[in-house]
Amino acid sequence: GILERLDAGEIVIGDGGFVFALEKRGYVKAGPWTPEATVEHPEAVRQLHREFLRAGANVLQTFTFYASEDKLENRGNYVAEKISCQKVNEAACDIAREVANEGDALVAGGVSQTPSYLSCKDKTEVKAVFQKQLDVFVKKNVDFLIAEYFEHVEEAVWAVEVLKESGKPVAATMCIGPEGDMHGVSPGQCAVQLVKAGASIVGVNCHFDPETSLETVRLMKEGLQAAKLKAYLMSQPLAFHTPDCGKQGFIDLPEFPFGLEPRIVTRWDIQKYARKAYDLGIRFIGGCCGFEPYHIRAIAEELAPERGFLPEASEKHGSWGDSLSMHTKPWVRARARKEYWENLKPASGRPYCPSMSKPDGWGVTKGAKELMQQKEATTEQQLKELFQKKK
Amino acid sequence: GILERLDAGEIVIGDGGFVFALEKRGYVKAGPWTPEATVEHPEAVRQLHREFLRAGANVLQTFTFYASEDKLENRGNYVAEKISCQKVNEAACDIAREVANEGDALVAGGVSQTPSYLSCKDKTEVKAVFQKQLDVFVKKNVDFLIAEYFEHVEEAVWAVEVLKESGKPVAATMCIGPEGDMHGVSPGQCAVQLVKAGASIVGVNCHFDPETSLETVRLMKEGLQAAKLKAYLMSQPLAFHTPDCGKQGFIDLPEFPFGLEPRIVTRWDIQKYARKAYDLGIRFIGGCCGFEPYHIRAIAEELAPERGFLPEASEKHGSWGDSLSMHTKPWVRARARKEYWENLKPASGRPYCPSMSKPDGWGVTKGAKELMQQKEATTEQQLKELFQKKK
Amino acid sequence: GILERLDAGEIVIGDGGFVFALEKRGYVKAGPWTPEATVEHPEAVRQLHREFLRAGANVLQTFTFYASEDKLENRGNYVAEKISCQKVNEAACDIAREVANEGDALVAGGVSQTPSYLSCKDKTEVKAVFQKQLDVFVKKNVDFLIAEYFEHVEEAVWAVEVLKESGKPVAATMCIGPEGDMHGVSPGQCAVQLVKAGASIVGVNCHFDPETSLETVRLMKEGLQAAKLKAYLMSQPLAFHTPDCGKQGFIDLPEFPFGLEPRIVTRWDIQKYARKAYDLGIRFIGGCCGFEPYHIRAIAEELAPERGFLPEASEKHGSWGDSLSMHTKPWVRARARKEYWENLKPASGRPYCPSMSKPDGWGVTKGAKELMQQKEATTEQQLKELFQKKK
Amino acid sequence: GILERLDAGEIVIGDGGFVFALEKRGYVKAGPWTPEATVEHPEAVRQLHREFLRAGANVLQTFTFYASEDKLENRGNYVAEKISCQKVNEAACDIAREVANEGDALVAGGVSQTPSYLSCKDKTEVKAVFQKQLDVFVKKNVDFLIAEYFEHVEEAVWAVEVLKESGKPVAATMCIGPEGDMHGVSPGQCAVQLVKAGASIVGVNCHFDPETSLETVRLMKEGLQAAKLKAYLMSQPLAFHTPDCGKQGFIDLPEFPFGLEPRIVTRWDIQKYARKAYDLGIRFIGGCCGFEPYHIRAIAEELAPERGFLPEASEKHGSWGDSLSMHTKPWVRARARKEYWENLKPASGRPYCPSMSKPDGWGVTKGAKELMQQKEATTEQQLKELFQKKK
Repeated sequence: GILERLDAGEIVIGDGGFVFALEKRGYVKAGPWTPEATVEHPEAVRQLHREFLRAGANVLQTFTFYASEDKLENRGNYVAEKISCQKVNEAACDIAREVANEGDALVAGGVSQTPSYLSCKDKTEVKAVFQKQLDVFVKKNVDFLIAEYFEHVEEAVWAVEVLKESGKPVAATMCIGPEGDMHGVSPGQCAVQLVKAGASIVGVNCHFDPETSLETVRLMKEGLQAAKLKAYLMSQPLAFHTPDCGKQGFIDLPEFPFGLEPRIVTRWDIQKYARKAYDLGIRFIGGCCGFEPYHIRAIAEELAPERGFLPEASEKHGSWGDSLSMHTKPWVRARARKEYWENLKPASGRPYCPSMSKPDGWGVTKGAKELMQQKEATTEQQLKELFQKKK
Repeated sequence: GILERLDAGEIVIGDGGFVFALEKRGYVKAGPWTPEATVEHPEAVRQLHREFLRAGANVLQTFTFYASEDKLENRGNYVAEKISCQKVNEAACDIAREVANEGDALVAGGVSQTPSYLSCKDKTEVKAVFQKQLDVFVKKNVDFLIAEYFEHVEEAVWAVEVLKESGKPVAATMCIGPEGDMHGVSPGQCAVQLVKAGASIVGVNCHFDPETSLETVRLMKEGLQAAKLKAYLMSQPLAFHTPDCGKQGFIDLPEFPFGLEPRIVTRWDIQKYARKAYDLGIRFIGGCCGFEPYHIRAIAEELAPERGFLPEASEKHGSWGDSLSMHTKPWVRARARKEYWENLKPASGRPYCPSMSKPDGWGVTKGAKELMQQKEATTEQQLKELFQKKK
Repeated sequence: GILERLDAGEIVIGDGGFVFALEKRGYVKAGPWTPEATVEHPEAVRQLHREFLRAGANVLQTFTFYASEDKLENRGNYVAEKISCQKVNEAACDIAREVANEGDALVAGGVSQTPSYLSCKDKTEVKAVFQKQLDVFVKKNVDFLIAEYFEHVEEAVWAVEVLKESGKPVAATMCIGPEGDMHGVSPGQCAVQLVKAGASIVGVNCHFDPETSLETVRLMKEGLQAAKLKAYLMSQPLAFHTPDCGKQGFIDLPEFPFGLEPRIVTRWDIQKYARKAYDLGIRFIGGCCGFEPYHIRAIAEELAPERGFLPEASEKHGSWGDSLSMHTKPWVRARARKEYWENLKPASGRPYCPSMSKPDGWGVTKGAKELMQQKEATTEQQLKELFQKKK
Repeated sequence: GILERLDAGEIVIGDGGFVFALEKRGYVKAGPWTPEATVEHPEAVRQLHREFLRAGANVLQTFTFYASEDKLENRGNYVAEKISCQKVNEAACDIAREVANEGDALVAGGVSQTPSYLSCKDKTEVKAVFQKQLDVFVKKNVDFLIAEYFEHVEEAVWAVEVLKESGKPVAATMCIGPEGDMHGVSPGQCAVQLVKAGASIVGVNCHFDPETSLETVRLMKEGLQAAKLKAYLMSQPLAFHTPDCGKQGFIDLPEFPFGLEPRIVTRWDIQKYARKAYDLGIRFIGGCCGFEPYHIRAIAEELAPERGFLPEASEKHGSWGDSLSMHTKPWVRARARKEYWENLKPASGRPYCPSMSKPDGWGVTKGAKELMQQKEATTEQQLKELFQKKK
């Protein structure tokens, strides 16, 4: 189990991002981002799982992001009629298990934030949504559970409470930055609440680049220490550079989601991230949107000295570029060394583009903060309405 | 057949780049870049073919890049013992055909430049290398043949001559820019020689970005017109921005091959490329290294008005971002329109990096040119030796 | 007097930076930055004063930056033998007064941080250094006094205490950013101490760009409000963009001082600065290093509606580029409007350069902070020694 | 005389740009760019001359740019009533001579392109305009003459013919790039025509950055060699980086003239320029718009080994930053060396700005070319009219 591995001091490597990878492969629609591909195109989902496994992932997350019933109905109505929430979740479990059995990996069932919460449904109703997915995870006997991608700690706590009833270990990650959740709860406080609700592993996923995400986990760690609570730490950031993000992360960048290419991190950026995450005490290290199999392999390669082995996919990769020593051109062979790639400042090839952007929703975010503080709104929906009114 | 389609005025869409895509997925080693994955991991190759097919490709190229016997022995010796050249090529044909049958696509058998030529083997020997691959293509009955990725028109002509003997249509593309081939033969002259050797379709692939590649094809077209020759035009450029390249293309950029991420083109860049290619009279439009399935889909979507239909993968993609109209946040919904994405200047998120690089091998390239002019060297091998000596 | 003007609600416009402007004109040496030009080349100093006056400055600061006796001896020893501290200061007063009489401007005598303080001389010794300059200012009867460019509030307070004894109004500005002074005293706390010591006007000068400097003044304002103290606010920032600065400002940027050109702000940047400063309640608005006469004019033009008049030099400048309406080329005439220049994102013409740098002394700064906190060092000198030892 | 110096093998250093420097100082209006300041504010003009002299200039050009009668009437009508063309030119000569006498410099009387030519006046009329200025130069007995800033070689030839009649040596520079003049005459051909008309010195000034300008002079040199003509070469480029310029130079860049700051070249860029100019055989090396006194000093410092002496202003400048060895901070002292400044890639501090721009008038330029080729227009005026009509 996951806790046995972590208790034994192992480094657990997570997998990468499914919705972005499968969007580029043609199986997920940007906007709704729903995972009906588990039923429609299982071979594509299976292949991506397999690539992450080969790259070194110890955990295969079921492709159940946004697979709650309310989300599938709400956004994915172009598929909801034919494919039920239950079918999507069951297929996701079956595929993940099939591939996990090809190697040494655990299967984690995942839930994420719900439209029900954002539209102010009450605790009972929101919990019922999570319960429905949990029922499938229990039936399919996944190894542990992850509550991920929550912008509001209140909803994340509810999710953990539901998942916890299964008796399986629960991990919980929020998609927040150092400024905290959308109600203004600090990362440290978020971590405390999640652990008190029953999470054994806490951290962040999505919305921010590796560097920012590690800063957020550091603040979570401080919060837990101050509260004398213990938990394992976890990070699954974006594979995009986002130094210019506001509080709500990359969603607000003008490039989201169809112009993010120049921000994609290199494998070397990931090696730095893996090392820094390890040094910070994080032991569940993976990725989210933008992470392709080679990014996960970079984590496994960076931490190979600590773990004692390389992943299968490293058969097709020389450490720090050393496969280039076979290149014809002498100046390309000269790149087959660590210092070269460590110090490279890669050019964008885009002299007419800037290096940073102003987030689009900045005004809204600032307005949101004020409105929150005035207690006029407690949900994003209300916020938007209030904000529109004030404009 | 390919010529029937082109004769009928159809736009033929090519597929994308295999070595780069499969390197990121964990199945190809950078440096040797050889395609033994057709035997080792057919499911991964099959899946990528399928994604390109879904994205709109009408041609599936056998994954036989660098699959000549001399290359497999020379560079891929870490696999050559166990996997014969013949097996690699046969498996490649079988997989491509299997997937092509899932839709409306042709299978093209492909050969590329050889170590034999670069090490000054004579015409007979070099032709024998191509013949070996051709034997498999004939046995497996591919629909047509492509000689691609040639830096020297002399070798490309030899390849076309060999392939032509099969009686199948032959396409030929060189990996050159507007400055011409490594012996200084202009693009127009290269095109003329290839058509005279028997190619029905000529153009460029790899080494340069879409804009530069189209300029090269334009020069080829001019050359053919001046010589009163007729041929179809073809372009399969990089999916990387390379305005800073020297004569030898992206190989010489300091970012090659592990730091090219910030240069990756967006789907919107590709739509501009597809339109411009079409306007230039090119009717075989595809991609090379860096082209992922969503880039191929962008070609198919841009030219949907002319072709009258969308590819299958467009079920998961709204034209010009219109699927974002379902997003929760109003400022993201505001991105669901063509002008937004057409005019976006995407930021790199890398304020410490420049926008352009100086090519590494520049000095060598200039030295090469001089040495060539002095007739001291006619092959790259000799060039390198001479250059080293002069330094 | 200065206070009468401020009390009457006037906006007082300061002058620009002398050491940088005169370095480019060939009269000041970078490194020592001492003002012996007042004696050696009075015509050059006079001309620069005159240009600032024409541009709208209401205050002409005597060119006595770093003109304390210890500094002139210490750094400027290549001139100290022939030119005494007294002569430099006297000449500076005479020149400033001569030009001030050409228009409606006040003369302010200025002192700045001393080597004596940095080398741990005691309060009495440091004060004696300021007294020597003050004696000249009193003799020459300047209109008021400015203590500027202090990194340590303790020394600034001593300076204010000395200057205050003259009975003349005293302004005090520190060269700090939002992180506070080199001992870690916050901007708000610095402002409180300066006002308590007798300063009627407080703020910041040098070291940071306009945007950062205004943030620092905002924090000062908050500190004064919290302490229920009243004072006028003043800002004289750099005319360089420095978003990448660390705590010690632009000195640590790799471009300081001979590669700052790409960071020079435009006149439009200054108009934004002037408006923002005004909106923040600042009523003494000027500039420091990098500010040329046309930057000062931009302050005067932006605030012309509030002030009711334009400066003399606006005879040679159309508001918001309107003089371009006389240009031959129609596309240049199209630039004769506010929206054009307000929204322009000016390109650097340097595609091989990044947009931000890592400050050089970062490590030192961080080390310094720790050492300070450990109370091992209280002066920069000690810090450096300790830092070197620890390395 | 100028020719004696050049014949003796001396390197002659020119001065910098007056209109840009004095615009920033508040004495010239952008748009008309006329030099009435010689009468209105002689002290400002005198001071700038003096700074260039101190920086090492051997030639002081009379500030008579755009001081032809037709230009002063046409554009500068806001001053023309009170200040006659003759007064402006006479004052310019007097001031230049006064300062030249302070050192070892020659005075050059200068004429530039005229509105008369652009509005299709005939040869006689245009020559009469030049003659009027020449009469003043002869009366004031300048040392030699410069015809500069011509976009059309035809007009430059007329100017040279007029100036030549004075019996004084004539230099002629055009504001063109490698593509040649506005009628499409190549740089080589321009040089040939100018020398045949009587110019002893030919080259380029303004409109393009140092690198581009040197390429243009190189082409002129080739043209002269091919025609077996002899002349001295001269270059006075912009002090702005303009790699993104079209044929008409920096006028068409969106940043012209009020947002060019990020493009300003450093003193180190100028040292590279001076060296490269010298290596190319250019012996009259100066600058145009953007060149401040410290840029001219950089030429003199770079070529000090060849010339055997430093300029006066180098008393206030350490070679290659060595005055920084006196700085307090050790990491700033570490910048006191040549390799540091030679290799610095200075950041813009502008992460929201691109590194290159698209020239504004591009379309017009291309349209212009076509119209020229169609022989429908021979003047800029006609071109604009035609272009407007076609749109």
